[in-house]
Amino acid sequence: MTTTASLKTIIEDTSAAVAADPGAASVTFAAESDLVGVCEVDVRIGDKTVKIDEPQTLGGGGAGPNPVEFALAALGSCQAITYRFWSEKLGLRLDALRVQVRGDLDVRGLFGMQDGIRAGFGTVEIAVHLSGPEPANRYAELRRLVDEHCPVLDIFANSVPVSTTMSLR
Amino acid sequence: MTTTASLKTIIEDTSAAVAADPGAASVTFAAESDLVGVCEVDVRIGDKTVKIDEPQTLGGGGAGPNPVEFALAALGSCQAITYRFWSEKLGLRLDALRVQVRGDLDVRGLFGMQDGIRAGFGTVEIAVHLSGPEPANRYAELRRLVDEHCPVLDIFANSVPVSTTMSLR
Repeated sequence: MTTTASLKTIIEDTSAAVAADPGAASVTFAAESDLVGVCEVDVRIGDKTVKIDEPQTLGGGGAGPNPVEFALAALGSCQAITYRFWSEKLGLRLDALRVQVRGDLDVRGLFGMQDGIRAGFGTVEIAVHLSGPEPANRYAELRRLVDEHCPVLDIFANSVPVSTTMSLR
Repeated sequence: MTTTASLKTIIEDTSAAVAADPGAASVTFAAESDLVGVCEVDVRIGDKTVKIDEPQTLGGGGAGPNPVEFALAALGSCQAITYRFWSEKLGLRLDALRVQVRGDLDVRGLFGMQDGIRAGFGTVEIAVHLSGPEPANRYAELRRLVDEHCPVLDIFANSVPVSTTMSLR
């Protein structure tokens, strides 16, 4: 099992490698989704597969969380891991961490029932609960740095350039 | 198992219910993430739990996809399900659907190694592969409507208001 001591080494080694070769910093991530039921989707990510579905109230079979729940899981887990990375960088102990995320969505956007209602979340709230022995102002500094450097928070809070193509076969 | 015939009924019933009571359109989704290892996170979403971790190269144990991969899974699956919803609304047959999503990320953003590099994806590409018997222009119309109404595409492409709080305990 990786320890936080080795995590610190990995962060330092990664930083050194990227300083020597900035091209090493560029990473491509990918996911391939197949519609395998009415709303059921199997997603392959490397050697792993995850299942996503809609609840029965939205026409699915409830075989997995739905896409917007997955987006909230991505956000909460990214906050948690970014807290871990930056607590290591700052040398702060982190004894326990829970991140609660909730988002409000108006389904009229998805179904195109009314103009001017966005398809995604109108608002998202993140509540971080943290335990540790350091002074409160150190954790406040940690929080500020995490919110500046959390990848999935950046995806939510800012606009990402997305291109789409479609092919028939 | 839900059939696409019942999906069409559910879409119509949901639309009628929301037309009668717009408050019924507002849905809250939630996810609770606990850091259970160095970078390993258990996320509870309703009665389901998913596991997220970093690969060993980033200091984790590789017990699950990482948060940005989860974000891409959310995006690809949301495209797939929105294709299903809108093909039902338009009365178009959809025989098979695969959605490939890839995103490029510069890890210098996460690690705060250089100002001006964003923490999340610099670019994201979606490639949709679709099979069905309808004329190509109908599927082109479908694609346009999906991209206007896909909730997770909206989260990526546009800015979402996110608030954060932190409590020590």
